[in-house]
Amino acid sequence: MNRSYNFSPGPATLPEEVLQQAKEELLDWRGLGASVMEISHHAPEFQQLMDETEQNLRDLLNIPTNYKVLFIPGGGRGQFSMVPLNLLGGKVIADYLDTGLWSDMAAKEASRYCEVNRVASSAEQKYCTIPEQSSWKHHPQAAYFHYADNETVHGNEFSYVPKLTNVPIVADMSSNILSRTINVTDFALIYAAAQKNIGISGITLVIIREDLLGQALPITPMMFNYTLHAKANSLLNTPPTFPWYITGLVFQWLKKQGGIASIEKINAKKAKKLYDCIDSSSLYINDVHPRYRSRMNVVFKLKDENLDVRFLEASRQSGFIGLKGHKLVGGMRASLYNAFPEQAVDAFVTFLQHFEKTMA
Amino acid sequence: MNRSYNFSPGPATLPEEVLQQAKEELLDWRGLGASVMEISHHAPEFQQLMDETEQNLRDLLNIPTNYKVLFIPGGGRGQFSMVPLNLLGGKVIADYLDTGLWSDMAAKEASRYCEVNRVASSAEQKYCTIPEQSSWKHHPQAAYFHYADNETVHGNEFSYVPKLTNVPIVADMSSNILSRTINVTDFALIYAAAQKNIGISGITLVIIREDLLGQALPITPMMFNYTLHAKANSLLNTPPTFPWYITGLVFQWLKKQGGIASIEKINAKKAKKLYDCIDSSSLYINDVHPRYRSRMNVVFKLKDENLDVRFLEASRQSGFIGLKGHKLVGGMRASLYNAFPEQAVDAFVTFLQHFEKTMA
Repeated sequence: MNRSYNFSPGPATLPEEVLQQAKEELLDWRGLGASVMEISHHAPEFQQLMDETEQNLRDLLNIPTNYKVLFIPGGGRGQFSMVPLNLLGGKVIADYLDTGLWSDMAAKEASRYCEVNRVASSAEQKYCTIPEQSSWKHHPQAAYFHYADNETVHGNEFSYVPKLTNVPIVADMSSNILSRTINVTDFALIYAAAQKNIGISGITLVIIREDLLGQALPITPMMFNYTLHAKANSLLNTPPTFPWYITGLVFQWLKKQGGIASIEKINAKKAKKLYDCIDSSSLYINDVHPRYRSRMNVVFKLKDENLDVRFLEASRQSGFIGLKGHKLVGGMRASLYNAFPEQAVDAFVTFLQHFEKTMA
Repeated sequence: MNRSYNFSPGPATLPEEVLQQAKEELLDWRGLGASVMEISHHAPEFQQLMDETEQNLRDLLNIPTNYKVLFIPGGGRGQFSMVPLNLLGGKVIADYLDTGLWSDMAAKEASRYCEVNRVASSAEQKYCTIPEQSSWKHHPQAAYFHYADNETVHGNEFSYVPKLTNVPIVADMSSNILSRTINVTDFALIYAAAQKNIGISGITLVIIREDLLGQALPITPMMFNYTLHAKANSLLNTPPTFPWYITGLVFQWLKKQGGIASIEKINAKKAKKLYDCIDSSSLYINDVHPRYRSRMNVVFKLKDENLDVRFLEASRQSGFIGLKGHKLVGGMRASLYNAFPEQAVDAFVTFLQHFEKTMA
C-alpha cells in the first residue's frame, strides 16, 4: 500500500499508527466481539474510552478543573450559533474580530442573536494580516470577545494570545488546537471542530469555564445548550461514537510524540522549511504578513496562475494530494497539521524546487 | 475472531460485510493513498460517494423527485428542535402523538417554540399500546402532526400509516426506517438517526417534501435550517464523512439483500420467532398490545426480576450482548434491526428455552 502525502485542509491526514490500530480492531474492539461502531455509548467499555480521552486531553492541554470538556456534534458552524445563544447572558452586544472567512461567518451568525461589534477587520487587506491589537475598538458592554486563532482559507494565525480585561475571550481553534502550548486560563471558551488536529469530522471539542454555564437563551435548541451537554457528560444524545474513538487514538498518539511541547517544535520546523522554500523561490508567492503566517495552512500562489493545473497534476503524480486552495482565494494550500510528517515536507520542498526548475 | 450476537438498541450491529470492506480499505480508499476519513468532502471521489448513496436510498425507498434527501449532524434530538423551527411557518400550534419516551421528548422540545396539542397519549398505559386513531383530538390550526413510528424504549410500533387530511405528517423513523415498505408520499417529512438501520451514529437522515422548505423561523441556527442544508446539498459545513461512508456501504448491502421488500419478510420472521418464544414461555413476559408490538425492539421481562443479573451473565457467556433494557423500564430488550441475522434469533430462542429450563 502506498500512502499519499495528504495536504487536505480537513478532513485531514491522520497518524498512520492511528489508522492501523483502527483497522486491526475494526470488527472486534476490546474483546467484545463487536466493532466500536456497534457498541452502545452507555456500555462500560465506551464510558472508559470517554474517560481516558478526556483525561488525555486534560493532560495534554493542562486543563484546570474549573473547565468542562465537551464533545458535541455540529462542527464549527454549530459553534457560531452556540456561542451567542449560550454566552450573551443578559447582554445584547458581542465583540468580534474579523480576520478571515470563518471569523466573518461567526460574526454574521451571531448578528441574528445580538448586536455584533466588529472590533477590527483585515478584510480590506484581503486578510493577509491581523489588525494590530492597539487598533481594536471594544464595546464596553460586550458579553464576550470572539476571534479565530487560525484562518485556514487565508493562512493567517495569531502569534500571541490577546490579553483583555473584563471580557471573556472565545477562541475558534478549529485548525490549530493542540499544535502549540496554550494557557487555557487565558480563555473563557475554546472550540475546535475535530477534523484537523483532533480526529475526524463529526465531532467538536468545547472547553468552557464552568461559570459561563447556565445562561442559555430560552430559544436555544436542546442540542445547542452547553449546560445540558455538561450535565449529561456529553451524552445528551447518542454521540458520534466512532469520531470520538478516533479522537481518543489521536490523543494517545500525541502523548507518545512527547505531547504539545514536542509537536510544537516539529510544527515550527515544518512551517519554516516550507516558507523558506517559498521565499527563496521566484515562482511561488505567499502574501501573508510574516508575523501572522499560519504554521498550519501555508497558502501560496504560482506567479502565473496558468500553471496551476500543471502544478496540481505534477504534484499528484508525485504523491501529494489535497493541495488546491480554497475556491475563494484560489492558488494552493499546504496544510501541515500535527499528523503531517516532517519528511513529507522535505519531499515537498524538493518537489517544489524541481518543479520550479522545469518551468524555468 | 468471534463475533458476538449484538442486540444493542443503537449504535447497533452492522452487516459483517460492511465492516470487512471498511477494514480492507481503511488506509487506502478508492486508490487515493488515503483513508476515506482523511479526504475532503469537496473531493470528487467523496462527491461520487454522496451521489451513489443518495441514489441508492432513492431506489430503496422509491423517493419521488419532489422530496429532498438530507444528511445532517445532530441526531434525533436535533430533529426535535428542527421540526418546529422549520415547519411552523406562520402557525403557532402543532399536533403531537405521545406513544413513548421519544415522542414525548419531541413534544416537550417543540413546546419551547409553539403550543403543543397532544392529540392522544398512551402514557397511562405505560406506553404498552398506541391510542386508537379514532380517539385522536387534532387541532384544526396545527402546522403539522408528529409521531414516532417505533418507540425503542417501550417496544411499540405502528402497524399502519396514519392517514390525515390537510395536515403534514412528520414521522420519527429513527428505529425502523428501511425495515419495511413505506410510501414516502404519505409523509411530509421523515427523519431517522443513523445508528440503527442506516449506519453509525453521528449522521441523521431527513427526507423532506420540497414545498416545506423556505419557512424557517428567524431564530433558527444556521445548522438547524433544512433550507440551507438543501441548498448546500448537505455540505453546509464539513459533514460527518465516515458515518456517511458507512451509510453508503449499508445501502449497498441492503440492495444486495434484495431491497426493502426482501428484508421486510426476514424482519417479520425474526420478530415472530422471538415473540412466539416469549408467548409460549412461563418465564418471559411482553406486555405490549399484540397489534403494536415492535418488530425492531422486542422488550421483555423475567417474571422474577431477581433473575435479571443471572440472565444477563448467562446470555453474555453464550455470546449475546446489548440485551439490558432501558433504565426507564428495566428488563430486557432484544433489538432486531436489519443487520441482525435470522440465525442469531434462532440461537437466542434456543438459549431462552434452555435458560428457562435450568430455572425451572
